[in-house]
Amino acid sequence: MEPTTPERESLSGWRRRWHEIIFESDTPAGRAFDLALIASILASVGLVMLESVDGLEAGYGAALRVGEWFFTILFTVEYAMRLLCVVRPWKYVFSWLGMIDLLAIVPTYLGVLLPGAHVLISLRTLRLLRIFRILKLANYLKEAEVLRRALVASQPKITVFLLAIAALVTVIGSLMYVIEGPENGFTNIPVGIYWAIVTLTTVGFGDITPKTLPGQLFASLVMILGYAIIAVPTGIVTAEMTRRTPDREEPVSTQCCMACSAGGHDADARFCKYCGAPL
Amino acid sequence: MEPTTPERESLSGWRRRWHEIIFESDTPAGRAFDLALIASILASVGLVMLESVDGLEAGYGAALRVGEWFFTILFTVEYAMRLLCVVRPWKYVFSWLGMIDLLAIVPTYLGVLLPGAHVLISLRTLRLLRIFRILKLANYLKEAEVLRRALVASQPKITVFLLAIAALVTVIGSLMYVIEGPENGFTNIPVGIYWAIVTLTTVGFGDITPKTLPGQLFASLVMILGYAIIAVPTGIVTAEMTRRTPDREEPVSTQCCMACSAGGHDADARFCKYCGAPL
Amino acid sequence: MEPTTPERESLSGWRRRWHEIIFESDTPAGRAFDLALIASILASVGLVMLESVDGLEAGYGAALRVGEWFFTILFTVEYAMRLLCVVRPWKYVFSWLGMIDLLAIVPTYLGVLLPGAHVLISLRTLRLLRIFRILKLANYLKEAEVLRRALVASQPKITVFLLAIAALVTVIGSLMYVIEGPENGFTNIPVGIYWAIVTLTTVGFGDITPKTLPGQLFASLVMILGYAIIAVPTGIVTAEMTRRTPDREEPVSTQCCMACSAGGHDADARFCKYCGAPL
Amino acid sequence: MEPTTPERESLSGWRRRWHEIIFESDTPAGRAFDLALIASILASVGLVMLESVDGLEAGYGAALRVGEWFFTILFTVEYAMRLLCVVRPWKYVFSWLGMIDLLAIVPTYLGVLLPGAHVLISLRTLRLLRIFRILKLANYLKEAEVLRRALVASQPKITVFLLAIAALVTVIGSLMYVIEGPENGFTNIPVGIYWAIVTLTTVGFGDITPKTLPGQLFASLVMILGYAIIAVPTGIVTAEMTRRTPDREEPVSTQCCMACSAGGHDADARFCKYCGAPL
Repeated sequence: MEPTTPERESLSGWRRRWHEIIFESDTPAGRAFDLALIASILASVGLVMLESVDGLEAGYGAALRVGEWFFTILFTVEYAMRLLCVVRPWKYVFSWLGMIDLLAIVPTYLGVLLPGAHVLISLRTLRLLRIFRILKLANYLKEAEVLRRALVASQPKITVFLLAIAALVTVIGSLMYVIEGPENGFTNIPVGIYWAIVTLTTVGFGDITPKTLPGQLFASLVMILGYAIIAVPTGIVTAEMTRRTPDREEPVSTQCCMACSAGGHDADARFCKYCGAPL
Repeated sequence: MEPTTPERESLSGWRRRWHEIIFESDTPAGRAFDLALIASILASVGLVMLESVDGLEAGYGAALRVGEWFFTILFTVEYAMRLLCVVRPWKYVFSWLGMIDLLAIVPTYLGVLLPGAHVLISLRTLRLLRIFRILKLANYLKEAEVLRRALVASQPKITVFLLAIAALVTVIGSLMYVIEGPENGFTNIPVGIYWAIVTLTTVGFGDITPKTLPGQLFASLVMILGYAIIAVPTGIVTAEMTRRTPDREEPVSTQCCMACSAGGHDADARFCKYCGAPL
Repeated sequence: MEPTTPERESLSGWRRRWHEIIFESDTPAGRAFDLALIASILASVGLVMLESVDGLEAGYGAALRVGEWFFTILFTVEYAMRLLCVVRPWKYVFSWLGMIDLLAIVPTYLGVLLPGAHVLISLRTLRLLRIFRILKLANYLKEAEVLRRALVASQPKITVFLLAIAALVTVIGSLMYVIEGPENGFTNIPVGIYWAIVTLTTVGFGDITPKTLPGQLFASLVMILGYAIIAVPTGIVTAEMTRRTPDREEPVSTQCCMACSAGGHDADARFCKYCGAPL
Repeated sequence: MEPTTPERESLSGWRRRWHEIIFESDTPAGRAFDLALIASILASVGLVMLESVDGLEAGYGAALRVGEWFFTILFTVEYAMRLLCVVRPWKYVFSWLGMIDLLAIVPTYLGVLLPGAHVLISLRTLRLLRIFRILKLANYLKEAEVLRRALVASQPKITVFLLAIAALVTVIGSLMYVIEGPENGFTNIPVGIYWAIVTLTTVGFGDITPKTLPGQLFASLVMILGYAIIAVPTGIVTAEMTRRTPDREEPVSTQCCMACSAGGHDADARFCKYCGAPL
């Protein structure tokens, strides 16, 4: 998404330094920028939340408005700086994070022209997703990495699983629409599918429920099916994680070969497996 | 369900070629047919959904009707072709997939005579189940196979589990009917069983809930029981999947040391780790 | 609960034969009795269900009444026979299964005197629990055994877990009672505890929900806690089952020692580990 | 939190003995004190519950009041004793358990002055948390230890997971607030976040539900996401527990063959399985 280190070479002096600060986090300045960014994202999200509460909006409207403009201008400056010191600005603009960064500042400006557009300021919370990126950078926190890898490794199985679920809920939703009909709240097939998803995932809002005996019978079957199905994604991820968690702390020898200085020998090895020298 | 390859030999020239296209997917034509079939099933399901939405039905009724007839005729032609080029047509007609294929075209014709029967057109979504079959064929996608095998292997355990659950929910439902009674929504034992299933599976619609203190106490016990029970199907499938997932991808070499004949060397080992002789 | 085989010896001829038929299932007659018993339990449970449905009660009241008396007399005869051919009748009467057997016949007789007591006939469904006993006998169905053992082995962990949950829901329920108060549906602490259980188990009926912001905040914490906690019973049982499922089909040698005929040798064994003779 | 054994040495005679009784549980007196404490906590919690039930409060108000004062005075004495025989009283006062102990007695006294403060007596149930501490001491019950260790070991992974969830629900809640708006129950962003948590954790109260088609579509995505996500904490804890549960109880002998010095013999082996020499 962003230029890799070799590409950075093509940037001139100050742009390269700024790039290091804004896009990377292995220098003290970069780390400080990241922390400041997280802090202002959290503060602006808190502000957006307060703004959405009716009572507060009435009492502290002016203060909240000032805060909103403060963060809008701050984020606008940040956006401009990112554009300036990146090698390929358009690539950044059309990246996911770039679009979210833009989305965080546009609604305030738009709100001047169209008052209705102001509600979109809530989209600013999407910037919280940057935290994932910063977490990803933080792979010294090894745990996030294990989690991420287990999920990535499970992805093909989960995709097959989701496809099957998609077909299943469509069939269940249609059958329920036929069984219960619009008079019992199943007004159309999409609503039936929504009900099927609510039920299969065991969320069970209860806003739409079967009223007739055949409907309740079918719903019971669906729920028991869901009960059996819920085991599947859990099993997939768990199997991955069990595999990845070292089974027991295998006594890997810390010994290095004196001849070729290769490591990673088994605990019971008496000769280097790469050069044959005695350990 | 459908004739195996040796049986196909008994078909005459063009029927054999069509059989290959329609029922199999290992030729380019067969694969293309499968893709076209999935596309038209998805399109017709989309159409059925749109038709069920009240607002759209009013505005675009004519267009939707044309679309419905288009797919009905398409599927009728497909059904006829399947009948023509299969060795034992009756076996296909009474197979699950055959009945679903028929169910997908009958309601439109029936709707001409009985307007009420038209709602059954929603059953067309059942054809989505064919996707499972095509997924099954796609076992180059190894993941679906692992999933399927883990489920099949878990089947006896899951059957015992479902039987126990069936007995349990009947008992719970009856007790709840005695405790709460018809005046609190538990109008009869089947409703009580429906409630028990809704609760044990942690779906919890909330359309029927205990109102008395003894009822709430009993419901609490049922929920905690359900909490403990939900672990069981998960445990069953996970244990199966953990067993099936290779423990780690260790490329253990089958090479033995020529000098001391010790085995178990790592794949990258070039010298015996026990005696230092070259491998 | 019932006399073991040696005790059976103390029974006279016909009582011993009947005991074999009624209480055991390793003879053809015993097996037939078990099947007939399951069939009549299922039929009587079905009848009780139909009886509880208002509409049917009105239409087929007489037929249902006849059926009820038929099964009551059948079960009374069975109960009498069990009493006759058991070594220690009182032990049977006060066993769990004995009390359920009695509970299944008393309400019909009682209903003659007190019409209100008739609703207790629903307790007859408790006899379904006998199916568990018959399943237990069926340990040729090895799966039930694995399941049972994994649950038994997990029991101490699950007990600790349930104790912790009991303390937790009491604390959560009380806090919620203080935060939301009777005006928002949390009329007393037991209701608060009921809500805490409904929420922690992710059932979520929605009959009682937090209305105030602090209440919703606290509820959010409880739900996330429940989300983390749900992993625990699953983890406990899964770990047990994974351990019990053979990790891979270990190539256990089927070789027997020719000298001492002991089996169970490892696949790589060249000498009998018990007597030292070459294999 | 409390003085370790060496520190106890600094206490004078009777204080040291009391300390042993009150804070420790390895003497008969200490164990008896713990049991008496649990009993009185359970009794006082039962009393608080009864007090909160409206009907009982009216009928048995006087008796309940007497009981409350009895436990208040008992706990006050216990609190004073703890203060007296602890080395650093202030450390105890400001510890979690110390604050809970104080919180359990203050409301009754406060209730004399401010009648409204009496509802806080429900906070006495927090003392149930002491049971956790006593459970912790009970590490002869090895199971609690395994559970605790698995949870502690999973903590970093769970922390990363909870952070990600926090960011996710904020984003989902804001999007839902934009999609559905205040007219459909999503009155502000905190309410949207509350709904997101209710949905993602599959609790699904149903007090707030999407009404529009886009809202239901988005909710469906959130639910399926939650379905996939629920696998993660389960996977984390299960992987930990599987690792910790000994794989099988193989009593592997540490004996080596005297003749060929091969190891890995079974515990019941009497002869070397490789060379046949007696072990």
